[in-house]
Amino acid sequence: MKRGRPQTARLRIRIDRESKAPIYQQIAERIRNLIEDNELKEGDRLPPVRTLAEGLGLNRNTVSLAYREMESIGLVQSSVGRGTFVRIRRPDGLAVSAVKREGPMDWARAVSRRSAGRGEVLERLAMGDGVGRIELTGAVADRDLFPVDEFREVLEEVVREMGASVLDYGSREGYLPLRKWLAERLTRQGTAVGANDVFILNGAQPGLDLVGKLLIDEGDAVAVESPTYYNAIGAFRLYGAELAGVPMDGEGLLPSALEETFARRPVKLLYCMPTFQNPTGVSMSRARREAVLDLARRRSVAILEDTFDADLRYRGKEEISLRGLPGGEDVLLLGTFSKILFPGLRLGWLVAPAPLHEAIGRIRRSTDLAAGLLAQAAIHRFCEKGLLDSHLERVRAVNRRRLRVLVESMAERFPPDVKWTEPDGGMSLWVTLPPRVDAVEVLLEARRLGVNFTPGPLFHADGGGGNAFRLSFTLEKEERIAEGVRVLGGLLEEKCRKRRSARDDAPSVFL
Amino acid sequence: MKRGRPQTARLRIRIDRESKAPIYQQIAERIRNLIEDNELKEGDRLPPVRTLAEGLGLNRNTVSLAYREMESIGLVQSSVGRGTFVRIRRPDGLAVSAVKREGPMDWARAVSRRSAGRGEVLERLAMGDGVGRIELTGAVADRDLFPVDEFREVLEEVVREMGASVLDYGSREGYLPLRKWLAERLTRQGTAVGANDVFILNGAQPGLDLVGKLLIDEGDAVAVESPTYYNAIGAFRLYGAELAGVPMDGEGLLPSALEETFARRPVKLLYCMPTFQNPTGVSMSRARREAVLDLARRRSVAILEDTFDADLRYRGKEEISLRGLPGGEDVLLLGTFSKILFPGLRLGWLVAPAPLHEAIGRIRRSTDLAAGLLAQAAIHRFCEKGLLDSHLERVRAVNRRRLRVLVESMAERFPPDVKWTEPDGGMSLWVTLPPRVDAVEVLLEARRLGVNFTPGPLFHADGGGGNAFRLSFTLEKEERIAEGVRVLGGLLEEKCRKRRSARDDAPSVFL
Repeated sequence: MKRGRPQTARLRIRIDRESKAPIYQQIAERIRNLIEDNELKEGDRLPPVRTLAEGLGLNRNTVSLAYREMESIGLVQSSVGRGTFVRIRRPDGLAVSAVKREGPMDWARAVSRRSAGRGEVLERLAMGDGVGRIELTGAVADRDLFPVDEFREVLEEVVREMGASVLDYGSREGYLPLRKWLAERLTRQGTAVGANDVFILNGAQPGLDLVGKLLIDEGDAVAVESPTYYNAIGAFRLYGAELAGVPMDGEGLLPSALEETFARRPVKLLYCMPTFQNPTGVSMSRARREAVLDLARRRSVAILEDTFDADLRYRGKEEISLRGLPGGEDVLLLGTFSKILFPGLRLGWLVAPAPLHEAIGRIRRSTDLAAGLLAQAAIHRFCEKGLLDSHLERVRAVNRRRLRVLVESMAERFPPDVKWTEPDGGMSLWVTLPPRVDAVEVLLEARRLGVNFTPGPLFHADGGGGNAFRLSFTLEKEERIAEGVRVLGGLLEEKCRKRRSARDDAPSVFL
Repeated sequence: MKRGRPQTARLRIRIDRESKAPIYQQIAERIRNLIEDNELKEGDRLPPVRTLAEGLGLNRNTVSLAYREMESIGLVQSSVGRGTFVRIRRPDGLAVSAVKREGPMDWARAVSRRSAGRGEVLERLAMGDGVGRIELTGAVADRDLFPVDEFREVLEEVVREMGASVLDYGSREGYLPLRKWLAERLTRQGTAVGANDVFILNGAQPGLDLVGKLLIDEGDAVAVESPTYYNAIGAFRLYGAELAGVPMDGEGLLPSALEETFARRPVKLLYCMPTFQNPTGVSMSRARREAVLDLARRRSVAILEDTFDADLRYRGKEEISLRGLPGGEDVLLLGTFSKILFPGLRLGWLVAPAPLHEAIGRIRRSTDLAAGLLAQAAIHRFCEKGLLDSHLERVRAVNRRRLRVLVESMAERFPPDVKWTEPDGGMSLWVTLPPRVDAVEVLLEARRLGVNFTPGPLFHADGGGGNAFRLSFTLEKEERIAEGVRVLGGLLEEKCRKRRSARDDAPSVFL
């Protein structure tokens, strides 16, 4: 059925500057609602970016981002020179990213509900794109610090000594000497575990996927820190989890808020990072850890504790893991080599209690069979020789200085109503802007000026974080960190001033 | 609530020798039904293995296997010196493997429905366990043929030349030079694809998991060859797939049966291996490939084509992939390096049509981020130097001889009513016993005599395959293959003779 020339839709959109949701997302959400309510129909043309931006008194980039987000999740489709149009959707109403209805296969119908997307555009923005920007984004180590020569020798040695066996299938659980080494290291750090409890994985992300498979049924509630690691949100959602974000303070998860979350409905799993939390850098105190563990135990909520970058401590004393506390035996403990050694080897690990071992083996049989044996054997040899410890010492010294430069530059350059966390370790800290300053708008301008950071909404399961962002300090050298903060400081100064003097009524438009 | 001393349950069990299901599974299924019908209750004691075996006129090993299977899926629990008891189950009736109700966490309640198991014991039997048996099990290459020295040099070279960058995160899609190399190789082989369509994975198994995530919603029908690769069955079931096994003949999937399957209900996905199918070794003719592709296209059924060990051809001419046929552009094509090079590197690949690229990237973001970059770069360098081709030539020559020895020994040693496939390549062939000869019973005795193979039921989504098994010929040397066949031949001779002379009434017992 052919349609006539599409009419440009007339939109009633109101921006709420007080909202925690970023402006671009408010626009996208509003248009999504209009489509869902059938006020916008398939084939309707959206107003041009410029028109909408002018009407709302917004930067064009912000509106353009909203359009790209909608396109990436399949709500609209843009056509060069013609405009942006409301798209065909699946019969069940699901909008599916970039899945076109072409050719013999109707992929838009074929793809699963779980593969529908959200927040694509923001994640792509947040990824460094190698055009020379100052990358204060990504919890990524500086590869200039990688101990490449030592590793090359270890690799050569391992293949020479172990021969074909190190290139063959390994056991599902992982390379036993590495499991032993990890168990002994954890035990020395106060978390007593046995080698049999350690499973080696192709990175930490497969651990999130594994725990999702293992514990989550459609509709199960998973409590997470708010903000939290964005790819954990995605991993749990793949299995139908409903996420409940729990607020934090400077000591991590708020026990009262956690208790409320647990009381509101049965919660299957609590996912948390007690040390140098991603993205905030906040660490839980011992008392807080005990409180969290106790609350979860009393409600029989499983805990997945992500150690992430806990080895990167620059000051203060080691805190014991939840898993290592009395009563913590049932905590699932996840870790990775990607933050302290070589991400390109894809090695992580999961400590799990004995009753789950068989189910874990069964799931891995259908998922990935095993982790790479060569990578495991090489990392094991490297660590066993003490090379990890000396590498960590070096990295900590460098990162400590980078963190200091970051914090000192911020103190000097950021407006007084901008706040940030000051972590004792890790790879990043968390910046909170005054209300009504939109972090994504700042990001769009910062990127034009050559600085990148990770916007807050990415870390929120519930659309919050609009006036916050994460700054990472492990990838760039000190001078570039200082330079990046200088650029951001200028931008924030301007934004905050504008906001302070802005008229109180929020922009709103009817096109 | 304490219970009195448990009574030994009285069981009415009838073994159907004509059934396609193996005997141990018939026992386990019958007891499962009695539990589900509440005729057996929590805490009831099952008869001792010996009693039941005598009553049914069966080998004790068979009954013991049934008990171990039930225990592994959580139906019963055995306690040394006390006996085997019907177990506690989840409130929703789900029996969960080895998940005990101990400690503060009730894992039996916490684990997801998808992590419940089935067929565990058989899979464990089928795995080689390194006690020196002749392993005619596992589609696994002989590590004595691995080109270790060449690879060690390549590895050293790659790390020296690429430095830290090869140890850092790679792109989500994979290492571009390897994607290009694969695309060019596939194109030379008649399957024209672009590098952008190739995604590098941590093995082929993650590709099955990825396609499951991408296409399967709870209750979707997936058609598979019957028999098929057992870890594909597991992967699709994790996402709620209902599997429909489609019968094959000597040319692969039967088009008429496939058409019936498609007509019976909407099918989301067809998973198949057109070349050297696992486990049968059967290859589809060109005409059969065209028919299968055509049927799927007419019903809009997505196809996942697994190339598996297609590079291991010992005679005959190359067949073109479904993906390479006219109209095959939408076929998803899965491959692995584990069958032709080093499984310990965990590298596989998936070719997917453009409309799915974004969704694949999104799923991998929540699943595994990327494949190991060092492994990719090393394999690429190895292949680019032509070392894969020379390695393949050598392996093919060795395997060709092993296959010949296997087939010749079988012709000499196996009773005349045992049949088998004679593949043109690959790693295994498929043996069919006369009706009423139970392959699992043969396996239990063969293992005691030092020979291992893979029993048929493992490859059936629907409990068939009881009188069939897979013999692999790539792991063991020629003499050991011949010796293994000699042992099996003796066993089969005895079993077939017994069956031929057995009284017609099937064993049945009321204990």
